[in-house]
Amino acid sequence: MAIPIPDCRDIVSRALAEDIGSGDITSQFTIPLDLISIAVIVAKEKGIVCGLPIVEEVFRQIDPTLKLQFFLAEGAQIAPGDRLCEISGFAQSILSGERVALNFLQRLSGISTKTNRYVELISGCKARIIDTRKTTPGLRILEKYAVRVGGGYNHRFGLYDALMIKDNHILACGSITKAVELALSQAPHVMTVTVECDNLDQVREAVEAGADMVLLDNMSLSELEQAMLLVDGNAGTEASGGVNESTVREIALTGVDVISVGAITHSVPSLDISLDFSSV
Amino acid sequence: MAIPIPDCRDIVSRALAEDIGSGDITSQFTIPLDLISIAVIVAKEKGIVCGLPIVEEVFRQIDPTLKLQFFLAEGAQIAPGDRLCEISGFAQSILSGERVALNFLQRLSGISTKTNRYVELISGCKARIIDTRKTTPGLRILEKYAVRVGGGYNHRFGLYDALMIKDNHILACGSITKAVELALSQAPHVMTVTVECDNLDQVREAVEAGADMVLLDNMSLSELEQAMLLVDGNAGTEASGGVNESTVREIALTGVDVISVGAITHSVPSLDISLDFSSV
Amino acid sequence: MAIPIPDCRDIVSRALAEDIGSGDITSQFTIPLDLISIAVIVAKEKGIVCGLPIVEEVFRQIDPTLKLQFFLAEGAQIAPGDRLCEISGFAQSILSGERVALNFLQRLSGISTKTNRYVELISGCKARIIDTRKTTPGLRILEKYAVRVGGGYNHRFGLYDALMIKDNHILACGSITKAVELALSQAPHVMTVTVECDNLDQVREAVEAGADMVLLDNMSLSELEQAMLLVDGNAGTEASGGVNESTVREIALTGVDVISVGAITHSVPSLDISLDFSSV
Amino acid sequence: MAIPIPDCRDIVSRALAEDIGSGDITSQFTIPLDLISIAVIVAKEKGIVCGLPIVEEVFRQIDPTLKLQFFLAEGAQIAPGDRLCEISGFAQSILSGERVALNFLQRLSGISTKTNRYVELISGCKARIIDTRKTTPGLRILEKYAVRVGGGYNHRFGLYDALMIKDNHILACGSITKAVELALSQAPHVMTVTVECDNLDQVREAVEAGADMVLLDNMSLSELEQAMLLVDGNAGTEASGGVNESTVREIALTGVDVISVGAITHSVPSLDISLDFSSV
Amino acid sequence: MAIPIPDCRDIVSRALAEDIGSGDITSQFTIPLDLISIAVIVAKEKGIVCGLPIVEEVFRQIDPTLKLQFFLAEGAQIAPGDRLCEISGFAQSILSGERVALNFLQRLSGISTKTNRYVELISGCKARIIDTRKTTPGLRILEKYAVRVGGGYNHRFGLYDALMIKDNHILACGSITKAVELALSQAPHVMTVTVECDNLDQVREAVEAGADMVLLDNMSLSELEQAMLLVDGNAGTEASGGVNESTVREIALTGVDVISVGAITHSVPSLDISLDFSSV
Amino acid sequence: MAIPIPDCRDIVSRALAEDIGSGDITSQFTIPLDLISIAVIVAKEKGIVCGLPIVEEVFRQIDPTLKLQFFLAEGAQIAPGDRLCEISGFAQSILSGERVALNFLQRLSGISTKTNRYVELISGCKARIIDTRKTTPGLRILEKYAVRVGGGYNHRFGLYDALMIKDNHILACGSITKAVELALSQAPHVMTVTVECDNLDQVREAVEAGADMVLLDNMSLSELEQAMLLVDGNAGTEASGGVNESTVREIALTGVDVISVGAITHSVPSLDISLDFSSV
Repeated sequence: MAIPIPDCRDIVSRALAEDIGSGDITSQFTIPLDLISIAVIVAKEKGIVCGLPIVEEVFRQIDPTLKLQFFLAEGAQIAPGDRLCEISGFAQSILSGERVALNFLQRLSGISTKTNRYVELISGCKARIIDTRKTTPGLRILEKYAVRVGGGYNHRFGLYDALMIKDNHILACGSITKAVELALSQAPHVMTVTVECDNLDQVREAVEAGADMVLLDNMSLSELEQAMLLVDGNAGTEASGGVNESTVREIALTGVDVISVGAITHSVPSLDISLDFSSV
Repeated sequence: MAIPIPDCRDIVSRALAEDIGSGDITSQFTIPLDLISIAVIVAKEKGIVCGLPIVEEVFRQIDPTLKLQFFLAEGAQIAPGDRLCEISGFAQSILSGERVALNFLQRLSGISTKTNRYVELISGCKARIIDTRKTTPGLRILEKYAVRVGGGYNHRFGLYDALMIKDNHILACGSITKAVELALSQAPHVMTVTVECDNLDQVREAVEAGADMVLLDNMSLSELEQAMLLVDGNAGTEASGGVNESTVREIALTGVDVISVGAITHSVPSLDISLDFSSV
Repeated sequence: MAIPIPDCRDIVSRALAEDIGSGDITSQFTIPLDLISIAVIVAKEKGIVCGLPIVEEVFRQIDPTLKLQFFLAEGAQIAPGDRLCEISGFAQSILSGERVALNFLQRLSGISTKTNRYVELISGCKARIIDTRKTTPGLRILEKYAVRVGGGYNHRFGLYDALMIKDNHILACGSITKAVELALSQAPHVMTVTVECDNLDQVREAVEAGADMVLLDNMSLSELEQAMLLVDGNAGTEASGGVNESTVREIALTGVDVISVGAITHSVPSLDISLDFSSV
Repeated sequence: MAIPIPDCRDIVSRALAEDIGSGDITSQFTIPLDLISIAVIVAKEKGIVCGLPIVEEVFRQIDPTLKLQFFLAEGAQIAPGDRLCEISGFAQSILSGERVALNFLQRLSGISTKTNRYVELISGCKARIIDTRKTTPGLRILEKYAVRVGGGYNHRFGLYDALMIKDNHILACGSITKAVELALSQAPHVMTVTVECDNLDQVREAVEAGADMVLLDNMSLSELEQAMLLVDGNAGTEASGGVNESTVREIALTGVDVISVGAITHSVPSLDISLDFSSV
Repeated sequence: MAIPIPDCRDIVSRALAEDIGSGDITSQFTIPLDLISIAVIVAKEKGIVCGLPIVEEVFRQIDPTLKLQFFLAEGAQIAPGDRLCEISGFAQSILSGERVALNFLQRLSGISTKTNRYVELISGCKARIIDTRKTTPGLRILEKYAVRVGGGYNHRFGLYDALMIKDNHILACGSITKAVELALSQAPHVMTVTVECDNLDQVREAVEAGADMVLLDNMSLSELEQAMLLVDGNAGTEASGGVNESTVREIALTGVDVISVGAITHSVPSLDISLDFSSV
Repeated sequence: MAIPIPDCRDIVSRALAEDIGSGDITSQFTIPLDLISIAVIVAKEKGIVCGLPIVEEVFRQIDPTLKLQFFLAEGAQIAPGDRLCEISGFAQSILSGERVALNFLQRLSGISTKTNRYVELISGCKARIIDTRKTTPGLRILEKYAVRVGGGYNHRFGLYDALMIKDNHILACGSITKAVELALSQAPHVMTVTVECDNLDQVREAVEAGADMVLLDNMSLSELEQAMLLVDGNAGTEASGGVNESTVREIALTGVDVISVGAITHSVPSLDISLDFSSV
């Protein structure tokens, strides 16, 4: 099923205001107002493209008379030289939106490409690669979308849509049992409760207390295996910490349900993509 | 002279709204409203810290009664285990702001650390390391601040504060000479004009046309050297393209004035920094 | 545990702008700028008070020099004549904020009072009274807070924090089984899935498909009882439709987990509360 | 003459943001993006419909490709089973806007229905039924519109467009005479001055002082009649307080110009209206 | 009674954003962060000062640690050399706010000075000098405040707070009588109705139709006098058009209630006021 | 080359909200919703028209079904009686936008007309007439556009896009030399540095320190001439202070590059332009 595209109108309009400010003075003073051009967005690097609908929104806000034609679908594999999109219309409009469009496209494609690498590494396993809340401030909804385009899944979107009981919550309540009890007795009944566990005793207590999920944090492979035995299907399992491209498959093979990877959003190189004018 | 801190109030309030939404349900339901705690922000990795004033603003917006004490100055070298800041006050408030504060701090410190690596690599050269417009949409003002904290300098902030004549502007005008003439005859007299040049003929034409700066794009070292001879002090010089940690020193040694590096903002791993509760 | 107070700053500032517009011309032209007064907010009707922190925010935004003293806690039972709060300071400021403060206080207290009536009616039962999304546009976060102050609990806050599969989703997917499968295979793993069921066959299918909750919609008491037997603890149960003050206890006695009541937010008389000047 | 429809774009967009937040996850994960459906809005209760243009705006903001066809005009009498509007287009879009559209429509129709009941009760009298400032924070412009659709009239829209001298203003000035004099000598000449009067002496003083209107507050029928004699056409007259469905006609028969009723906005049951899919 | 100061927080914050943008680069790079200075705002021209509270808000938003001491009250007569206000604190903060503060102060003082000239010219007459809606877009609330500080009065604030029936409304309705009837039968009863009249026949018809005010537009003195006889106290009278410093007194002597002058807001030279540093 | 039109959508929407508020009650209650009219915008005074695209935006926001036909181009010379634009469509829409449209058009045309007078006075000279930051708060981008439409040029747009070292910056740094050095060593390399000079010694120091521009402030003609000799092409030159219609040509003849005139934005009479209905 197609990945739904988040509403990015406000994010795009702030990005344009940030870049254009009181005006694109270079284009205004060197490009005739009525000059028509054609530009092409071209991949310079291998990866998974993400952000084409954002590019469309950028140019729509700049100038609704621009025409965009896409040659590849969102989420497609791209290789150097691939033409992603052709834009035709007023040259001033294309030039004024170029950088913002590319900044979105390159960052989101970087995320979907990195996510997809993890997804490929665990192919055949039942585990899902999921994201975290370690996203760029202001861009979470787009970055979580890029994770899905890359084949990953989303964790909660913020502090508001699921409970995650961490060490400090446990300390404050006195015990995992007490914390889960407080959560279940007060939170909306549709909310799930995950308990972050550092060791097997905590896992056992969390499952007994009725947690929906246990987050197995920074555990060794053998600890993960023992944790899975302990949980025995009585709660969902999330592995987190120490996940990288070398370890992810072994972690997945322990049978955990989801593996959360902060790096797919917090440490991502942009994918190299450029905009070239084919005629001015 | 101290690096001036940009006004980040709106960026921070949007980041908090994005993460907290209709409420931090875990903290609300497991942490007593009046529980007082102390937390410490600790470095897990070597680098240059950047973003402490943003952390301060995050917690100020969450709860102005929180007390923050900083142990290190913005821009300091940090190493694993270094305590950066202690936060004391209501545990709910600290927990609700933790992730947003760290997301800012880790990304900005990533930028200042990476920038600083480039700055160190050309130490002794007159060239400046500068940023580009390849920044994260919505965070430009903070990312450009982080570049300065890392010892770099800023290029223009957007399309509005300097002219940069690129290939497409030149195509549209017919020639570099015509483009520079149009720019000089119309743009505010306080604005500078940079011309992006791919070859030596363009450099010669740009300097003769009266450009303030020439951007030497993707040139080999020998081309750069020839370009410097051609320019001969009659314009400023910016090197760009093909700049990485292996090449930057050789480029600087050609005598260029500034070297722009997109990667210090568009492809930055977060610096590992965490928040630990020392008492709950 | 105390009910956490939602962030109402924007809602309050819009309400004040709406009422004050270009200025409170009566007060400006008849009340000396420096006249100091004392006013008291007094209950005129029996109920559960809700909205005192909103009153505080209203007057703080109007004039931070006003002093407020509260005589009763949020959520207290009130009776005609009870003094809720004393406000002292500039008379112009008190008069300019009076109506907005009361509009919030009366509506929210109306909700908590009505909710509390339902809560009292099922006292001793394990069921929770919960709200719906039938709230006043723009005030959901406050109205859901008032439900909690009245002793009720919250359902999901919007379309974003839990899945609720209704007849139309089922139609679109072909079957409950298919709809639940699609939901579980794609939605964030921390999200719960509720299926709205009109009859026992649907209940059976939903539970078998793995739904977390079944919503038993507009069922008779005997249908509810049969549904409870069918579910047999394999999913949570929500009763909805046909809930009123006469039927709620019988519904609760069927053993359902939650009973959702739209009327506690969509059809609520304001509680009568006024502001009197004790000295001008 | 048709009742002018207020600009509701901002109110609607906030309501949608409140409900949809980071996304309608149920529809996204269970409804194919390209599924086309037809839905119908149907009355379940007798009343006066109000809010059809708001429904139109809700769906326009969600998805401008949706087609709406209205079968009844704003302000029409409706009865259970009446089809108000048919919506056709993408099923996801219709489902995402359903609740917000109904929340507006049900509340506004509740107001117009209740208003109309009062209007009918005084049919043949010259008095107007008018609203007050006791409206839902943030929705005043829409609620005052619903009053007009129900056959009522509007009082002032806020503190800014007319003067209303109440007991506290009088106390602050020393006397009604002084308060009216201050108001007339300073307020814009196009503003009217109403004086709230609790007894006949105040009425006499207000009229003599030159008030445009006297508000006869909480007076018995015989007091109202005496007040009307006193005023004798030298000011407009507003009755307020103690107005309900049993008393309103007798009050109107005293000859007052306007009767203000807070309950038509502050204590209104929603009118029962639903949205059904006729094909998915 | 003191002129109430409008809420200017948003206007000021937009003005600062407009001027400061991504930062006051001159001050940032040449003034030490901790340099303390004292600056004085000094009159260079004779007039009525207006805008001191706006100056206060500008500097409060820039830096709440700045201290301002005012030597003259809002509305005072000033002469070249008069010290209006001393500002002490961080030099960077003072410099960053200087221009915006002066732009407000000079424009508003220009308006109050020009208004006051008209007020003085009709001293002893009962007529009021009033403003129009010909104000600078975005600044109406401040410009109407400046008119009051200069001794004038306000007309309506916008299209929303009083009715003004002009030629086109009359054409659309068929006659003045019909237009006034429509207005009185539908508009809120607290709103007044002014009819713009070009000749005596219109004046007669407007008064007979029950208009609260007649606007005598572009009439000669003798026409004005005849109009006053016609009206004979049965409506208020506003003179408009052809009002300048030579004609205003004669117009006032006809006995009109108010004289509206567009030029006091739409064609105003700034009053010369500067900010000097007394110590850096 | 055509003057680029700034993005005025937000400025226009705020201006409309300011004027229309809760509704244009006169038009709503006297003009039938479906009445179609034609109105014409007509010049009443000689000048340079500026603001036609803003007029277009005003009416587009009010009612996108209105049709506008322009008879003259932005920047054209106009004379009394010239028809600028015809607007046809719903009479209510035209009337609701009339005042805001004219307020923009009259003010901007006032600026372009006054600017053009200065431009004409120095015709044949190489100097440019430029604006300052003495603009109306909130309208800078439009007022600077009007200056260009009048034939002038723009100075910097704010504190962010060029450095201007004034007396206080110099005092803080100790000397012009030190201030310029600090600026050059820290500011973005694309920024220019102007030094405000009161006397010839300062001019000499500024040029030697490497300033890009010297601002010759309040100098006599003979001082200006000496300054030009001193500068001798080693920096740009800006004359400022004491510029009026009598002096501007002599100043231009000294050979300065730019002459800045605050009065073209801070003290401008509106150009008389009106909107007349040709049919209702």
